[in-house]
Amino acid sequence: MAPHYVVRSVDRAGPQTIAALREAGVATAHEAAGRTGLLGPAVRARQSGAAIAGSAITVSCHPGDNLMIHAAVEVCSPGDVLVVTTTSPSTDGMFGDLLATSLMARGVAGLVIDAGIRDLATLREMGFPVWSRAVHAQGTVKASPGSVNVPVVAAGQIVRPGDIVVADDDGVLALPVAVGATVADAAAKRLDSESAKRAKLAAGTLGVDLYNLRPLLAELGVQYVDRLPDGML
Amino acid sequence: MAPHYVVRSVDRAGPQTIAALREAGVATAHEAAGRTGLLGPAVRARQSGAAIAGSAITVSCHPGDNLMIHAAVEVCSPGDVLVVTTTSPSTDGMFGDLLATSLMARGVAGLVIDAGIRDLATLREMGFPVWSRAVHAQGTVKASPGSVNVPVVAAGQIVRPGDIVVADDDGVLALPVAVGATVADAAAKRLDSESAKRAKLAAGTLGVDLYNLRPLLAELGVQYVDRLPDGML
Amino acid sequence: MAPHYVVRSVDRAGPQTIAALREAGVATAHEAAGRTGLLGPAVRARQSGAAIAGSAITVSCHPGDNLMIHAAVEVCSPGDVLVVTTTSPSTDGMFGDLLATSLMARGVAGLVIDAGIRDLATLREMGFPVWSRAVHAQGTVKASPGSVNVPVVAAGQIVRPGDIVVADDDGVLALPVAVGATVADAAAKRLDSESAKRAKLAAGTLGVDLYNLRPLLAELGVQYVDRLPDGML
Amino acid sequence: MAPHYVVRSVDRAGPQTIAALREAGVATAHEAAGRTGLLGPAVRARQSGAAIAGSAITVSCHPGDNLMIHAAVEVCSPGDVLVVTTTSPSTDGMFGDLLATSLMARGVAGLVIDAGIRDLATLREMGFPVWSRAVHAQGTVKASPGSVNVPVVAAGQIVRPGDIVVADDDGVLALPVAVGATVADAAAKRLDSESAKRAKLAAGTLGVDLYNLRPLLAELGVQYVDRLPDGML
Amino acid sequence: MAPHYVVRSVDRAGPQTIAALREAGVATAHEAAGRTGLLGPAVRARQSGAAIAGSAITVSCHPGDNLMIHAAVEVCSPGDVLVVTTTSPSTDGMFGDLLATSLMARGVAGLVIDAGIRDLATLREMGFPVWSRAVHAQGTVKASPGSVNVPVVAAGQIVRPGDIVVADDDGVLALPVAVGATVADAAAKRLDSESAKRAKLAAGTLGVDLYNLRPLLAELGVQYVDRLPDGML
Amino acid sequence: MAPHYVVRSVDRAGPQTIAALREAGVATAHEAAGRTGLLGPAVRARQSGAAIAGSAITVSCHPGDNLMIHAAVEVCSPGDVLVVTTTSPSTDGMFGDLLATSLMARGVAGLVIDAGIRDLATLREMGFPVWSRAVHAQGTVKASPGSVNVPVVAAGQIVRPGDIVVADDDGVLALPVAVGATVADAAAKRLDSESAKRAKLAAGTLGVDLYNLRPLLAELGVQYVDRLPDGML
Repeated sequence: MAPHYVVRSVDRAGPQTIAALREAGVATAHEAAGRTGLLGPAVRARQSGAAIAGSAITVSCHPGDNLMIHAAVEVCSPGDVLVVTTTSPSTDGMFGDLLATSLMARGVAGLVIDAGIRDLATLREMGFPVWSRAVHAQGTVKASPGSVNVPVVAAGQIVRPGDIVVADDDGVLALPVAVGATVADAAAKRLDSESAKRAKLAAGTLGVDLYNLRPLLAELGVQYVDRLPDGML
Repeated sequence: MAPHYVVRSVDRAGPQTIAALREAGVATAHEAAGRTGLLGPAVRARQSGAAIAGSAITVSCHPGDNLMIHAAVEVCSPGDVLVVTTTSPSTDGMFGDLLATSLMARGVAGLVIDAGIRDLATLREMGFPVWSRAVHAQGTVKASPGSVNVPVVAAGQIVRPGDIVVADDDGVLALPVAVGATVADAAAKRLDSESAKRAKLAAGTLGVDLYNLRPLLAELGVQYVDRLPDGML
Repeated sequence: MAPHYVVRSVDRAGPQTIAALREAGVATAHEAAGRTGLLGPAVRARQSGAAIAGSAITVSCHPGDNLMIHAAVEVCSPGDVLVVTTTSPSTDGMFGDLLATSLMARGVAGLVIDAGIRDLATLREMGFPVWSRAVHAQGTVKASPGSVNVPVVAAGQIVRPGDIVVADDDGVLALPVAVGATVADAAAKRLDSESAKRAKLAAGTLGVDLYNLRPLLAELGVQYVDRLPDGML
Repeated sequence: MAPHYVVRSVDRAGPQTIAALREAGVATAHEAAGRTGLLGPAVRARQSGAAIAGSAITVSCHPGDNLMIHAAVEVCSPGDVLVVTTTSPSTDGMFGDLLATSLMARGVAGLVIDAGIRDLATLREMGFPVWSRAVHAQGTVKASPGSVNVPVVAAGQIVRPGDIVVADDDGVLALPVAVGATVADAAAKRLDSESAKRAKLAAGTLGVDLYNLRPLLAELGVQYVDRLPDGML
Repeated sequence: MAPHYVVRSVDRAGPQTIAALREAGVATAHEAAGRTGLLGPAVRARQSGAAIAGSAITVSCHPGDNLMIHAAVEVCSPGDVLVVTTTSPSTDGMFGDLLATSLMARGVAGLVIDAGIRDLATLREMGFPVWSRAVHAQGTVKASPGSVNVPVVAAGQIVRPGDIVVADDDGVLALPVAVGATVADAAAKRLDSESAKRAKLAAGTLGVDLYNLRPLLAELGVQYVDRLPDGML
Repeated sequence: MAPHYVVRSVDRAGPQTIAALREAGVATAHEAAGRTGLLGPAVRARQSGAAIAGSAITVSCHPGDNLMIHAAVEVCSPGDVLVVTTTSPSTDGMFGDLLATSLMARGVAGLVIDAGIRDLATLREMGFPVWSRAVHAQGTVKASPGSVNVPVVAAGQIVRPGDIVVADDDGVLALPVAVGATVADAAAKRLDSESAKRAKLAAGTLGVDLYNLRPLLAELGVQYVDRLPDGML
């Protein structure tokens, strides 16, 4: 019952798609994807300014046990992003500087983990970016089986092996390979469109005019008044 | 039922009062105000070292809908602070760099939002300070009505339009205009008094002596002993 | 009933032990101590890069009342770490720059507090490191008795007076004096061992080989496959 | 600074309005009020099946201090609802069976408290309904001033003295007296309308037809398919 | 981008498998499934003693918008379980007695929702069982598109359309149809085995003997002593 | 390093003391103990109306591993209370009906666990009372060592082997044997005193008069007014 696998092969998106989504960033790529794919805010950046994208190598661990992270390393290719989850909620520090050293040696771009990490100061010095639910030094064991490259859930979001993972100061996004190129194109268009909008807004144009929101506000019954009517809280 | 308003006029405190309270900072102004007006700690600074004060422009939004933030922009004057709330709890990213561009064009001092923000790296580069409950890229819609410049509750604290909002690394404070000048005076006195105390404490004077706490400790039955008596936990 | 004490004498570990544990850091010392002594992740560093170790001066306060912190100052010796708890959960800002000034004047190394702190910007400027549950300016009173140098619980961990407290970006650890030297030796050995491992991992050796995990993975029934079998989630 | 008041007079809604809103219940009255006035879900019923409505007597306490609850008792009239808040977050058990005995002697309908309660088993036996943030026996003191019948914030919602408070298994609602009669009428109409709808739905009519939602679904681009297209997650 | 679907067809498990898993209950079925499929504890029973199993009809909604629940009703067959999620975290009360009436009219067995519900007292009277993240009367709109019968994540667990959902006082479990019969068999064996064990344990046999744990305890270095050695905390 | 023990001998309080504290209940015994010994509110009753007291058998487990609970059973005597903790935070369901059967066979009074339990419906039918942090069916392993009858921390409170544990609908209290008789006496006196007070309060005497609080309110500057002065929020 419940067999455990390390799956070696992963279908990855092309490098241009991945680069375009890294360039777009989490917020823009999420919008370009129709507001899908976002992990919850509890998994967040543990450094400032890092921005990565890569193919997901997914890991499902027993809580408090990092055995399967070790098993996942040799499946990683340069530019991949390791995505680690546990089978029940945990903040234990499953990942530290030794594992980061090993991943950097393989060219892994960064770590997304729905659990805890440790050696934070060293990780920052090494320049290995992490997104985690907690920083907690609590030690873990290597005793229970799990799987590598099966679909997992991280911070409420399904992540499949090979998904394009985008991560920056805004959080983490996971997109299926199949929609990658389309989303990357849409994201590039959004970046252009946002530049134009930014220039107009910086020059003083109001969003209610730029987005033509005044008719909607009127239709919704929003009234403009100089003073709040008496009796209104 | 439940009409929605954009109220254009707000009674603001004078610039000297506002400047004095920004100078005092959240902790000192809060003490000077008789320990009132503080927002809960869940809404916190998303950058380091920013310290602002200004008049509150309040916004009440449907969760996951930032329409009313757009409606609020034209009501802002230079130096104001936008205070955004939702009608039920939400961490969606209702505010990003485009809205910040628009607010900076109007001279708005910063944002306090009891919900999520996104584009954090860009906001930091722009130097637009934000205090928020979450960083979350989750996209929002523009579909539901709300109000601008009605009393709102942010992080458990009532904020009225025009309230003097002080925000720094310690959090956010909201004070009625009516008490502003008095609190500013009291805060200035506290700053002076704290400087004197700081010098004495730095020189080695103990707080129990400086504040004359030894009689109180004795009255409360606190015993000084060299060793904990046996049987005491 | 329930007498309150300020206990003046504390048995401290030797300075070499303390220095060795500071050098090892929280994560390594915690492992060297058999994965014991760690505080929960809710009490965390409020600055980046600080790393301290020292003897615990413990304080038990009524929530929202910092009287006993003042009483604790004169019991502190240079290099000590103040560990503050409340008798029920609280995020009130019980500690600020004046108390920090007083503690720095006595050479105290830092503060660990299972409650809130304030004046964060000033504390960072002063270089006084703090680990806290919250940043909250909420003011406190000086009205209720408590104790200094009795066993306390901070973030779910027992801390006894004199315990060696280690704190850095990974969190906070508290170890009994009796095990200090042994743990310090074990930690030093781990540091050596980790250096050797780090070199091998950096050179591309896999953890599954370095730690000989392949037999364990096989024994646990983990299967290596190229593709996930059909019908598996 | 920050004077403390016990305000004796409160403007209350009429008994028919209050009775009508109790009959409507929290969910229906909240809808009838344009989806306003609801407290957050963290303050919840500590018994099953109780349903009350009454005029708010508001209390603002120092956390861990129930002095002002005692001060509030003599201001209560039969049918009132006591609404207790603290000036910073607390789960301490500020209210137990003795205070409940005192309130029942005055005919108070129930308690809403954004903090902890204790003596839960006895409160249930007495039939005195409570809505609280926590059940926690943690004892409190009587040492700090506060106010009775000033506007407060409970679970993120402004509650003013005299507000009509409705509470049942769904939570707690607070409505201004000024809108009470209008909301009560609207709620009564909703109850009628819901009865009619309930009969139709029970008979098998679909909500998409009853509320005419099919055109909206089409307009929003929702497609009906027999099988999810390939490549769609 | 991001098309929205209502998928009409769902592959369901057979009624005997479903009945067997309902009989086994969440805890036993979860063990029989190799400790997979469990939703997190935040989604919990809102009544006492209900125990259901059925095929999942999944719904993905915009937070604060219950339009797609209405769209899902006609896709439900007798015995199904509705599983509702939102695209970002929400506790709004998206489901009440009218929707429950509609679902009962179609023979739906119950509701699992990673958000809020309301009309709790009525739902209990109706005997319609619900498992939810919150009880909150907060009203919702019908304005944004979503999908029915696509894979969703509820309380950290992937739920696919047609998954066998088991729910009782212990929480909620979701299992793929493909493993249903095998898990049901394994669960039935566990029930038998547990009955035998229960009888032995009730008769005084110790678990350390029944499960032969003494050798493991010895191997792990656990020492049996009459008194804790001195110096051990 | 970090040896693991099962300690067989525990010093227990006398049966009369234990019975008196059960009679007093958590809230009264906590007050009688000078407001000490209370566990945090996160560990709470999973049934209604149960009230127990007994000697603590403490268990320290690896998270997600219930091996040491099995090891603890044979150390229990009739009337004892099992107190289970984990070395890092966990909600896994470490305890179910089989372990309860085993404990009932030994006459154990109940379970206090700072983690999860499962088989809740059966536990209620069996009449075995539990206080837990969570209800979660998540399965656990039997693989890691821990200790029985060493001091532990449960919900922020130190619990020592043999401590008198009192648990009811208000939560859980742990008191050292050494203070048991004194606290039991004080609790009995409080029960008498509370009966007298209850009678007076039921007859309409106000708490402000019964406890003579009017002078304190005046001293603290609380003003009685008919209407809130203008300008006061």
